[in-house]
Amino acid sequence: MPLDPSRVVSRLEELRSLTGDVNGEQRVAWTETWAKGRAWLAESLADLPLDVERDEAGNDWYTLHGDSDRAVLIGGHMDSVPNGGWLDGCLNVLAGAEVLRRVAEEGTPPVTVRLVDWADEEGARFGRSLFGSSAAGGSMADQDELRKLVDGGGVPLPEAIAAFGIDLGRAVDARSQLESAAAYLELHIEQGPVLESLDLPLGAVLGTFGVERWRITWKGQAAHAGSTPMEQRRDALAGAAKLALAIRDIARDTGDGAVCTSGGVVCKPGIVTSVVETAEQLLDQRHLDPGKLASMLARAQELSRGFAAEERIDVDWERLWSIEPILFDDTLIGLADEAIREVAGSSHRLPSGPLHDAAEVARAGVPTVMLFVQSLRGLSHTKLEDTRPEHLELSVAALDRLATKTIDWIATG
Amino acid sequence: MPLDPSRVVSRLEELRSLTGDVNGEQRVAWTETWAKGRAWLAESLADLPLDVERDEAGNDWYTLHGDSDRAVLIGGHMDSVPNGGWLDGCLNVLAGAEVLRRVAEEGTPPVTVRLVDWADEEGARFGRSLFGSSAAGGSMADQDELRKLVDGGGVPLPEAIAAFGIDLGRAVDARSQLESAAAYLELHIEQGPVLESLDLPLGAVLGTFGVERWRITWKGQAAHAGSTPMEQRRDALAGAAKLALAIRDIARDTGDGAVCTSGGVVCKPGIVTSVVETAEQLLDQRHLDPGKLASMLARAQELSRGFAAEERIDVDWERLWSIEPILFDDTLIGLADEAIREVAGSSHRLPSGPLHDAAEVARAGVPTVMLFVQSLRGLSHTKLEDTRPEHLELSVAALDRLATKTIDWIATG
Repeated sequence: MPLDPSRVVSRLEELRSLTGDVNGEQRVAWTETWAKGRAWLAESLADLPLDVERDEAGNDWYTLHGDSDRAVLIGGHMDSVPNGGWLDGCLNVLAGAEVLRRVAEEGTPPVTVRLVDWADEEGARFGRSLFGSSAAGGSMADQDELRKLVDGGGVPLPEAIAAFGIDLGRAVDARSQLESAAAYLELHIEQGPVLESLDLPLGAVLGTFGVERWRITWKGQAAHAGSTPMEQRRDALAGAAKLALAIRDIARDTGDGAVCTSGGVVCKPGIVTSVVETAEQLLDQRHLDPGKLASMLARAQELSRGFAAEERIDVDWERLWSIEPILFDDTLIGLADEAIREVAGSSHRLPSGPLHDAAEVARAGVPTVMLFVQSLRGLSHTKLEDTRPEHLELSVAALDRLATKTIDWIATG
Repeated sequence: MPLDPSRVVSRLEELRSLTGDVNGEQRVAWTETWAKGRAWLAESLADLPLDVERDEAGNDWYTLHGDSDRAVLIGGHMDSVPNGGWLDGCLNVLAGAEVLRRVAEEGTPPVTVRLVDWADEEGARFGRSLFGSSAAGGSMADQDELRKLVDGGGVPLPEAIAAFGIDLGRAVDARSQLESAAAYLELHIEQGPVLESLDLPLGAVLGTFGVERWRITWKGQAAHAGSTPMEQRRDALAGAAKLALAIRDIARDTGDGAVCTSGGVVCKPGIVTSVVETAEQLLDQRHLDPGKLASMLARAQELSRGFAAEERIDVDWERLWSIEPILFDDTLIGLADEAIREVAGSSHRLPSGPLHDAAEVARAGVPTVMLFVQSLRGLSHTKLEDTRPEHLELSVAALDRLATKTIDWIATG
């Protein structure tokens, strides 16, 4: 049977009716609904000659053995955020399953082909994303930190995953899964507006942005809004306002997709009759080039010190989180471009703002690439998340072509 | 006995030990501690030939009858905010009591002199300030609105004041108290940094600022901080940041003591990974000139519409509260200046940013003036509120001189 992209769209709809409700998808990792979705996936692949295995981190592997043990991996994640969209994560898996079926039905491939359904990409329940892929990739954070995580109901992470047969202490043993990996492919919705604005269905992803995430605290002096002359004020909000505007210039001056965001300012005392004493500002900066990312941060910090001096207030920077840029494989990016052009006429190369399981695999040294398919209005992590069915079908066809090219590359390499 | 300004400082300390604790003064209106402070005041005046009366709004009047029924009023308030300072409100009353004692001990004055201790100036328990003076002045808000007010423990205002013998329905009958009023004098701490910055102990107050108080809602579009290019964003925080900076130019360009404050911005969703969709911004503008106040508001609104257009976001203005400027009496301002110069060498005229009971009396048509005494670091409504004892004594002496000048003016007018 040849590849049937339309079947993937039907399967996505079937999954939605099985694990969604009026508010959206509910396949939060380490819940029964998630397990139901994964069991439904396994059942759909039961007729193929696959080895099926759940690894020590809870990742599900569907292996089609080839003439060589060197393996081409196709990945995705069945888990969703609460009230999630119908595509984020499961499009990747179901498209991969369709490709695996097509390859399997053609007989034994020259290299091994494996579909992986990563455990807990979203981190929705415990606030820790990329659980399964970071365990397999070898970057899983200090396990003492994971042990302390509890969900909203007070259940500790180790207890929640134990209910699914996972022993946190052994999760990093999932690293053995990547020993034979020769390439990793992942399709995902863009979750941004770039492809839609270019009127293109598909793009080849260059890598994931490096991220600098900081909390900036501006400290001035509370003072009565009626009795304090303007020139005697030390207004913390003024510093935050200047920086909120300046970071936009930093992003535009840096270019190459640079983004800087101030996601919020919390003002204290925050009442109409007082000058703001303390303003806590969130900052997120992203770039694909580590040097440019470092420059953006340095410039924001330098400007902030100038603003603090102008306003006679204090400024303090606290790093919340950071990650370096992770670049995908040049050869695979070229193959992805070819595959996209063959099915859609033209391609576009773009970075990924959000992180993905692919970043963990690439960090582990496995040649990696992603395909993005257009998102309508850039929306995701909401039931409003959507992509045109014809674009979904094109994305399955492109992943299939990319898989064929990658198998050839690995087989002959 | 001549005037004894140092006795006022001793009495303030005595009151603090009676009704304060480690956190500050606790004479919140309509509480037992407040009643205790008021009873202590009444007792201290019991030896003087005064008529003592509590009016329908709970204001306490101490009347020294003179040759004429035309009355010079000296006012203040014994109530404080929770954890309040040792001067706000009660300095005025205790200084007035000292002046009344001095006048009484000199025999029958040519005009009647009355000390008034207004009920619930602060509005700390029910969020409605100037209760007693607005009842007497005739501007008391819609009583249906007052009937709905409840304190933090769920007690309705009518019930709380009934416990002190006050019938809300009859409170406005307190208006009769001002029928004989010929002048109103009030001493108060500045609650701002102006006199301290000029190194002056005392100032004559020109009136209370008009106030425009608004909530401004900026509405953009939430978007992923990683996947949304800068040029495709509609960032609500950008509008709020631009306005927070622009209002400072508006105040400086307007001059004459103009102040504009943005006391806070609340951002939604307010997370580090999203462009701000909604920013709710507080704005407070004040001026002594109604035309200039109106211009400041119009300019802020016009600028905000420009910012909204630049950022492709929406802006909406909602008035929270406003009051017109209330100007004090020119003749009394001149007498206050004279009195200050006589006791302190030099005077300074300044507007009041905060409202006071004096504003309600002036609005009712009674010639009014206030004296400000220097506040250290501009602090009030905190136990850190303070004024040097020598400045407190000068303020009592100045109030006494002003009372004498005002009695002469009314007697001969």
